[in-house]
Amino acid sequence: MTFTILVTGGAGYVGSHTILEILKAGYDVVCVDNLVNSFNEEGSKMPESLKRVEELTNRSLTFYNVDLQNRDSLRAVFRKHKIDCVAHFAALKAVGESCKHPLQYYQNNINGTSILLEAMEDFGCFNFVYSSSATVYGEVQFLPIDETHPTGNCTSPYGKSKYFVEEILRDLCASSDKWSVISLRYFNPVGAHPSGKIGEDPNGVPNNLMPFIAQVAVGRLPSLKVYGSDYNTPDGTGVRDYIHIVDLAEGHVKALQKLEKSNEKGFFAYNIGTGCGFSVLDMIKAFEEASGKQINYELVPRRPGDVPTSYSDASLAAQALGWRARLGIREMCEDTWRWQRSNPHGYAKL
Amino acid sequence: MTFTILVTGGAGYVGSHTILEILKAGYDVVCVDNLVNSFNEEGSKMPESLKRVEELTNRSLTFYNVDLQNRDSLRAVFRKHKIDCVAHFAALKAVGESCKHPLQYYQNNINGTSILLEAMEDFGCFNFVYSSSATVYGEVQFLPIDETHPTGNCTSPYGKSKYFVEEILRDLCASSDKWSVISLRYFNPVGAHPSGKIGEDPNGVPNNLMPFIAQVAVGRLPSLKVYGSDYNTPDGTGVRDYIHIVDLAEGHVKALQKLEKSNEKGFFAYNIGTGCGFSVLDMIKAFEEASGKQINYELVPRRPGDVPTSYSDASLAAQALGWRARLGIREMCEDTWRWQRSNPHGYAKL
Repeated sequence: MTFTILVTGGAGYVGSHTILEILKAGYDVVCVDNLVNSFNEEGSKMPESLKRVEELTNRSLTFYNVDLQNRDSLRAVFRKHKIDCVAHFAALKAVGESCKHPLQYYQNNINGTSILLEAMEDFGCFNFVYSSSATVYGEVQFLPIDETHPTGNCTSPYGKSKYFVEEILRDLCASSDKWSVISLRYFNPVGAHPSGKIGEDPNGVPNNLMPFIAQVAVGRLPSLKVYGSDYNTPDGTGVRDYIHIVDLAEGHVKALQKLEKSNEKGFFAYNIGTGCGFSVLDMIKAFEEASGKQINYELVPRRPGDVPTSYSDASLAAQALGWRARLGIREMCEDTWRWQRSNPHGYAKL
Repeated sequence: MTFTILVTGGAGYVGSHTILEILKAGYDVVCVDNLVNSFNEEGSKMPESLKRVEELTNRSLTFYNVDLQNRDSLRAVFRKHKIDCVAHFAALKAVGESCKHPLQYYQNNINGTSILLEAMEDFGCFNFVYSSSATVYGEVQFLPIDETHPTGNCTSPYGKSKYFVEEILRDLCASSDKWSVISLRYFNPVGAHPSGKIGEDPNGVPNNLMPFIAQVAVGRLPSLKVYGSDYNTPDGTGVRDYIHIVDLAEGHVKALQKLEKSNEKGFFAYNIGTGCGFSVLDMIKAFEEASGKQINYELVPRRPGDVPTSYSDASLAAQALGWRARLGIREMCEDTWRWQRSNPHGYAKL
């Protein structure tokens, strides 16, 4: 019997790349997404990103347009499919927006998750891979950040929502010995599948650095805003641990394999990063090299909720999951550029 | 125009005593409650506790059986009534049970609250009094606990749910200058209205000390379980800051008056306690004196999630709200006993 994975938020950037690797690894996929952040052609039953995933893998998946907060629709999916494990990506993810619309973030990210976990419990599914974030570490107390770093004291509602869900998952595992939960704490996912067929396609002006750079390179935006140039970092701009989306997706496959094969119960959190920090200006330079384009940028004030420097110690994931990042800053920029120049307007055909 | 207060969870112990004081202060009350923890006579449209509040005050209130997680029913209440302020009591509150059923606690306490806040926003109501708890202070770092004490690091899902909601409220106030939020951090509410007509009426075996003692005194339970006698406290039992429910209810009236009259926006938290700590054995002794009954008790192991000692510095509430506790341990025990002996089975007529 094939192990079936329910992927929530599977139409998005991280979800779609992960589904691709999950299908390649031989698992079956049922995907739910409310499509608030993804392109869906009028009248189409499946978002464009997932159609392309089917083409790339030559496999098919089942898709439902479901919002997790709609308890009945979600439960109908569990009723229809025998789910062995859930990989939970569905969430709002823009730090700045979360400060402006905290309730929306808490509802989507916390209420949605708890309704999902309740459904899992009721349908007897206790394997869970959670899309967490390095933001759960809050104010950075030491570097590199390993999994012993305190969590909490998060600087934005987005970060808090990720942290609160981790706490809920810990409590759930403490309440019952049925649950196996792996929380993957992403540092900064960037890049695209090397085919150039799927990639990051934010609605509106991008909130994250790489899609912003890429849209400037392709001429869709005039100039990049660099938020904060007075941080206590080598060049004054924020330093992050960028992780190639394909590496990150493979990390999920390793986590799923662990849940499928091991009988270990409880809550486990692993950093997903390369262990190297690059500044915003480093990334601009690398992207200029990869694309041959000049990136215009302007230095603007810091954004609320951003931290100066963050990079991981990712050795625990190597030890426990047998996973390590393989791809560097060059592949991150080249693959982003390939996706962007082949899809200047993302998934939409203009 | 009368100021109208929507009281959530108004049928419960704290809610009903507060409604009584709110009505006495001249405000109008609309109450919603899902009645999961209150006695409601078959076919009755209003729970017994609130019928008695109406009798005691000679005023009437509007009651709806609504669960906050039912978005549509809740919004219907806002559509029907012009609400000026919400006093939010609806929550599950048993520390031990929360460790066993964390999801239930997070759904009720967090999802319910965020759906309520969303409705308030949509209907233009931005005054909020939150029923918080001293458990938000987590591991006690200094005594007495004042409002500068760090919050978080809570030891139970119940405590975390109270803490998370405070964080949501802070973020909401930071996101918009419309909100005025007062969070009242209760220490340990005990006692009953001096009429003996309303009081604490837990379902099943009580989780809190005073109703347990009272049920032993009245012969409904054979013996009291004292959870933990090896704490680092004078007599080894847990020390708490007990606050008379009528004092606490008056604290809410002061908070509502502040919200009605002042134009101050933002998030404010105040301790609601007496500033004095009493041990479990102190309370047993005081109750024996008030009731003339002997209380049988047995020492049993600690409960998960309980802290050894907790008492407040309540001077900030005195300063900011003009509120101070008036009633002592004697009134707490006498009033509890009056309620218990006149209503040996709580609100249910057996």
